[in-house]
Amino acid sequence: MADKKRSRPISEVGEFGLIDILTNNIELKNPSTLKGIGDDAAVLDFKGKQVVVSTDLLAEGIHFNLMYVPLKHLGYKSVIVNLSDIYAMNAVPRQITVSIAVSNKFSVEALEDLYEGIKLACESYGIDLVGGDTTSSMTGLVISVTVIGEAEPDELIYRDGARATNLLCVSGDLGGAYMGLQLLERENEVFKVNPKMQPELSGYDYILGRQLKPEARKDMKGIFNKLGIKPTSMIDISDGLSSEIMHICKASGTGCKLYEEKIPLDNQTKQMAEELNINPLVAALNGGEDYELLFTLSVSDFEKIQNDTDISVIGHITEKSEGITLVTTGGSEIALQAQGWNHL
Amino acid sequence: MADKKRSRPISEVGEFGLIDILTNNIELKNPSTLKGIGDDAAVLDFKGKQVVVSTDLLAEGIHFNLMYVPLKHLGYKSVIVNLSDIYAMNAVPRQITVSIAVSNKFSVEALEDLYEGIKLACESYGIDLVGGDTTSSMTGLVISVTVIGEAEPDELIYRDGARATNLLCVSGDLGGAYMGLQLLERENEVFKVNPKMQPELSGYDYILGRQLKPEARKDMKGIFNKLGIKPTSMIDISDGLSSEIMHICKASGTGCKLYEEKIPLDNQTKQMAEELNINPLVAALNGGEDYELLFTLSVSDFEKIQNDTDISVIGHITEKSEGITLVTTGGSEIALQAQGWNHL
Repeated sequence: MADKKRSRPISEVGEFGLIDILTNNIELKNPSTLKGIGDDAAVLDFKGKQVVVSTDLLAEGIHFNLMYVPLKHLGYKSVIVNLSDIYAMNAVPRQITVSIAVSNKFSVEALEDLYEGIKLACESYGIDLVGGDTTSSMTGLVISVTVIGEAEPDELIYRDGARATNLLCVSGDLGGAYMGLQLLERENEVFKVNPKMQPELSGYDYILGRQLKPEARKDMKGIFNKLGIKPTSMIDISDGLSSEIMHICKASGTGCKLYEEKIPLDNQTKQMAEELNINPLVAALNGGEDYELLFTLSVSDFEKIQNDTDISVIGHITEKSEGITLVTTGGSEIALQAQGWNHL
Repeated sequence: MADKKRSRPISEVGEFGLIDILTNNIELKNPSTLKGIGDDAAVLDFKGKQVVVSTDLLAEGIHFNLMYVPLKHLGYKSVIVNLSDIYAMNAVPRQITVSIAVSNKFSVEALEDLYEGIKLACESYGIDLVGGDTTSSMTGLVISVTVIGEAEPDELIYRDGARATNLLCVSGDLGGAYMGLQLLERENEVFKVNPKMQPELSGYDYILGRQLKPEARKDMKGIFNKLGIKPTSMIDISDGLSSEIMHICKASGTGCKLYEEKIPLDNQTKQMAEELNINPLVAALNGGEDYELLFTLSVSDFEKIQNDTDISVIGHITEKSEGITLVTTGGSEIALQAQGWNHL
């Protein structure tokens, strides 16, 4: 957590002092942001474009464990997970609001670290931080981010446009964030038993990065344009491939065939899975937090994407009556299971 | 809380089941709402109007005590406090997103009660519930609401437009929500000692309502139009009159003189204050949660408002050098103190 040398209790600076400290140096970058922090509401002007809004809430002990997640990374990730929803609409995120509830175990400097991560994500993705709320909590940390983006009406891509025969595609690779989490949890258990033990994390930079500092697919909109394609439906992979496929099929009224052997897995994901004796397919299907985009394309677009190394065709959309199935490497077909959170 | 006869654990319905239960029967009312819940983001179209965004977070044990706040009231209030920020911009709220984190002590039915209040507020104020996030928490309940509204550019009223000689005005009366809270807390203490004791709440409907079921000043925009006035600055009273006056003066670069005898107090507020031996001025200045509007007007507008029973002139704006002072009924001048939260 924060440098131990400097550690002021929040009570020392007060609510308004804290807000000033956390939100200073914010430069507004987007022409659509007319007024950011400092009034009852932010004022935006999208000049006739359509506006997209999404929101996510992260709670300590549920979505993150501060034993191994640095606050700066947490701030970064809390923005990324929201941006991903806007990219999944094929829109461009422009503004965020960030609300936090914090208990008195957090120092002013710890929250500065959190906001450093938030601001870094804003910087990297061209987002303006335009508002929020800062309050205390009885226990732990809760972060709620709302993101606002814009798009021309004909650019937007919904979940409900998939049609039978469409190709089912995914950007990047899957399961890495989940395997990164397993590694962090293993080392945390070792640490709890023997705090002097150095964690064994070397050789796993990629999957650790996927968990601790995920990125959203800002680039895919440009790639679609360059390839001259427009997906018929799209969603981001936050809960795991299974659950996202179910969402698209449910919204579109279709079935789907997913091929196990086509699911893109990074070598580190496979290695870690072997080391921990976990089927990497489980990581891809139910692990979540990959923040890749899952989308469907007309079969006539196949030639345009077949040489793109960042897009994998992993199956195809079918009539609803055919169900939603996984075709295993062995050739058998099994029904996919959705899986939301089950923390409760 | 919820009817004890029906009480399903959330785990029984799962995340997606819960979302379906809580967000069914939502009818979209505003032409600016193109798509609500059901995709990665809501889609809105404000047709060239400016967009205002505000957000608030309420945490159990800090902002509410479920010992005496029914969940339906809490849901209602969590929307109202956000709408108030949009009315304070002289804009019209159109959409909200609602994110909640809940521990497993809450049943599905308890959350249905919460959402009933949320939906009732949406109904009363013409708001569309267009998105949100539902997740678990380690402890208690956190509610984060973001509200989006619209306005023509020349309608918006900011905090920074107050000028020396402007009249300082307030809608309605102040301190009632705070005195209602004191009453509830007194009766809760009695209840903890003797659970069979009936709470003594009769005769205090108004201040209890101010605390438990506050309303936002949806009507003031119409009143301003009818009277042919436009405030030079405006803010809503969520933290207490003192703090809001400081915000306007700081943003506008002015001072202010506030007159104790002019501060509007309801009779129940005064009675309860006497009963509890609290100065009602403290309730008005630092109690907060009144959700009235504080605004400044050109002195030339005085004649237009002098017969309006819903607007009180409580002071006037001065040059910055004169400071921000309260003129007591006895005639002495004291510096106003701001007060944000001090829960930490």
